Amino acid sequence: MKHQTNNLKKNHLIHTEELERQLRAALERRQATALKAVLQGQHPANIGDVLERLNVAQRRRVFNALELARQADVLAELAPNLVRDVAGPLKVGQIAAIVDAMPMDEAAYIIPMFPRRRSAILEAVEPKHALDIQRLLQYPVHSAGRMMTEKFVRVHKDWRAADTLVRLRRMNADVETLNNLYVVDDEERLEGVVSLREVVVAPARKKLGELMNTQLVSVTPETDREDVARLLSHYDYLSMPVLDPGGRMLGIIPVDDVIDVLAAESTEDILRFGGVESGPVDQPYFTISIKNAISRRIGWLLLLFVAETLTGMVLRHFESELAAVVALSFFIPLLIGTGGNTGAQTVSTLIRGLALGEVTLRDSWKVIGRELLSGLIIGLLLGTVSYMRAKFWGSSDALALTVSLSVLVICTWANTIGSLIPLLAQRFKIDPAAVSAPLITTLVDATGLAIYLYIAKAVMGL
Amino acid sequence: MKHQTNNLKKNHLIHTEELERQLRAALERRQATALKAVLQGQHPANIGDVLERLNVAQRRRVFNALELARQADVLAELAPNLVRDVAGPLKVGQIAAIVDAMPMDEAAYIIPMFPRRRSAILEAVEPKHALDIQRLLQYPVHSAGRMMTEKFVRVHKDWRAADTLVRLRRMNADVETLNNLYVVDDEERLEGVVSLREVVVAPARKKLGELMNTQLVSVTPETDREDVARLLSHYDYLSMPVLDPGGRMLGIIPVDDVIDVLAAESTEDILRFGGVESGPVDQPYFTISIKNAISRRIGWLLLLFVAETLTGMVLRHFESELAAVVALSFFIPLLIGTGGNTGAQTVSTLIRGLALGEVTLRDSWKVIGRELLSGLIIGLLLGTVSYMRAKFWGSSDALALTVSLSVLVICTWANTIGSLIPLLAQRFKIDPAAVSAPLITTLVDATGLAIYLYIAKAVMGL
Repeated sequence: MKHQTNNLKKNHLIHTEELERQLRAALERRQATALKAVLQGQHPANIGDVLERLNVAQRRRVFNALELARQADVLAELAPNLVRDVAGPLKVGQIAAIVDAMPMDEAAYIIPMFPRRRSAILEAVEPKHALDIQRLLQYPVHSAGRMMTEKFVRVHKDWRAADTLVRLRRMNADVETLNNLYVVDDEERLEGVVSLREVVVAPARKKLGELMNTQLVSVTPETDREDVARLLSHYDYLSMPVLDPGGRMLGIIPVDDVIDVLAAESTEDILRFGGVESGPVDQPYFTISIKNAISRRIGWLLLLFVAETLTGMVLRHFESELAAVVALSFFIPLLIGTGGNTGAQTVSTLIRGLALGEVTLRDSWKVIGRELLSGLIIGLLLGTVSYMRAKFWGSSDALALTVSLSVLVICTWANTIGSLIPLLAQRFKIDPAAVSAPLITTLVDATGLAIYLYIAKAVMGL
Repeated sequence: MKHQTNNLKKNHLIHTEELERQLRAALERRQATALKAVLQGQHPANIGDVLERLNVAQRRRVFNALELARQADVLAELAPNLVRDVAGPLKVGQIAAIVDAMPMDEAAYIIPMFPRRRSAILEAVEPKHALDIQRLLQYPVHSAGRMMTEKFVRVHKDWRAADTLVRLRRMNADVETLNNLYVVDDEERLEGVVSLREVVVAPARKKLGELMNTQLVSVTPETDREDVARLLSHYDYLSMPVLDPGGRMLGIIPVDDVIDVLAAESTEDILRFGGVESGPVDQPYFTISIKNAISRRIGWLLLLFVAETLTGMVLRHFESELAAVVALSFFIPLLIGTGGNTGAQTVSTLIRGLALGEVTLRDSWKVIGRELLSGLIIGLLLGTVSYMRAKFWGSSDALALTVSLSVLVICTWANTIGSLIPLLAQRFKIDPAAVSAPLITTLVDATGLAIYLYIAKAVMGL
């Protein structure tokens, strides 16, 4: 075997970099055979990574150099815009042939990318496969129904361990999802699950009915993919059965697809927390047009911009006070900045707690109380520091008192609404991860200013 | 089987809520047998979730009601502070007995939590197991070496498929990690991997040497756990072999442990992006003392607070201009807020691109150019809006021009440093995900102010 042992990440990158280099060389020489030789035996995920880095014409040439089954594997690894790049110019019959080579979940991922040719492609696909795919396409985009595969192995509870192994060999089943065997009754209702490993190590004459696990967790086709991932992770399963309301097996979701979901969702959450719309599907950084990249950002920016103009209104309201003591304005960015930072911390803490199920809505009051107290303590600490800082700058006692009191109140306030907003989002069935750092800082800006200037008015007698 | 089909997430929560209710009832009745009956057959992960929600005395009583093997399973699911809560009062011999019932990776997770009794525990553990554990403990906390398990199955390339199954049954191996079989030579060097499913469906007389996959990706014990997770996800493996520099098998990392890592890391990234130190190990929200929660936040807050006082210096520098045109200060929060929001978006976009490997350091100039251009376009759009907004407020032409020009420059600037900083972090081998939204907004605050007031001076002739 190839030893890629030392510093794997580096080697892995070298691996795809080397593939890219070789592919580019073959593309330049314009030899189809050289291209095929380079692609031989390469992992589809690595080919997909390199395609991202090529231009459209090169992508097509590389893709066309692959044989049909490999085209199917690579296509399933690509972001939607790349799928359209490489498969867009193909004829309906060619696309249908690739779809025929795919499991139904991958086919259901690919077909919506050709909305105008969708029915033509489905007509050209093998009829049973086409029906399966259409069934999947009924379910929402990020649901379990869209991810499930029909390639699971049905077994019967009366089968004995040794016989089961003989039958499996005879079935010559697609081995991809053979880790768990699903025990179903005559009407396809799930009765239990037994892992292949248990069947292998069990006494030869033991019946599957005695081996199977009946305390199962399953999902419906409508379950969100993120929930599927969390459940699989919680229970350490290798696949999750998808059942209809009657308890009949519709398909399974294998763990490797779930890992991809977790990776995608986690980076999506960072985007959303940063105030960027993640779009219905992931697209790699360089394959998004600048126009598209901006359109995902400008909505939030405009909204926050408008909200931020509230700060101007607050300041105009206190125009005479600001004119009387110009030094008041020196502390404005410091105060609202600190409030925003405190709020962002609380929001991220709660997004995490809610996502992991450590915090539930039942705990709302406990959480708010806890964060209010934390905010108060943080405010006391930072308030003390800011009093010293203001005195160091030679501010008057009144101004220093105003600033430190404001820090105290703003930190408490920012911490409280920083906990309130994710909880409210959860309450109204909005994903708390959609509460972004920019949203909370903008909210704290205007309210924090008002707090500061009211305190100034009271303390300094303006 | 229990049908937990409709809205699984809800049912799953009800499941742990029901367990909590029953446990609390049994605890109140103070009947050890009732407690044991409730715990019977419950999933260790669910028991772990409920323990989080109980008080220390209750945690201990529930834990003590479990039999030894189950105590080991539950302990492995718990955060460090809970491990200390429930296992802290136990005698060395009791802890050692639990450790004996654990695979080496879980043992290596538990033992460091008892630093003073560490060697005493290891002496009481079965000697070979103790050696394995000590070997694991040499590796860094978040490394592959700490996560690997010794429970993998070694096979020989000359074995035939059917014989292999017979041998596996005879081995009566721990079935937990039997999904992949590792073909090693006489010196434990890895020659290939074959999945159990392939062995089951292969012709009976086929040799493992013909079935095995030899194009393998492996890691070293020093590889970071996050890299292990990304590689497993990239290649869709069910386990990852860990090799020494000579290519000898040290252990494997199964996919279910990797899923837990991905879930932990993703929520950790949100915390760090929000400017909260995540601590060496994850702790559930309610089990962290308020003192600890604050200490994870106050460091960043103080640092940013000090950085934010730069804004005050900038403003003092322009004191006469601000005194002359008080209206200038009305736009301060709007301008620096918008700059911070834009910067936060860019940082989150790049954290994602770098994490997924879509962006590498080779692309740095391309990225900076792209973000500079995006910033310019966003600045033009928001600059136009702010010109109109300023005029609407009845600002002078000169002030409106100043504000819109400043938005243009600040957006471009925020976008540029928002791309530069994650790239620099990557360059200096700091995880880009450590660049937090508060850090970027604080940086943009002081610099954005200076930009605004210099433009004001130039345009308005102050």
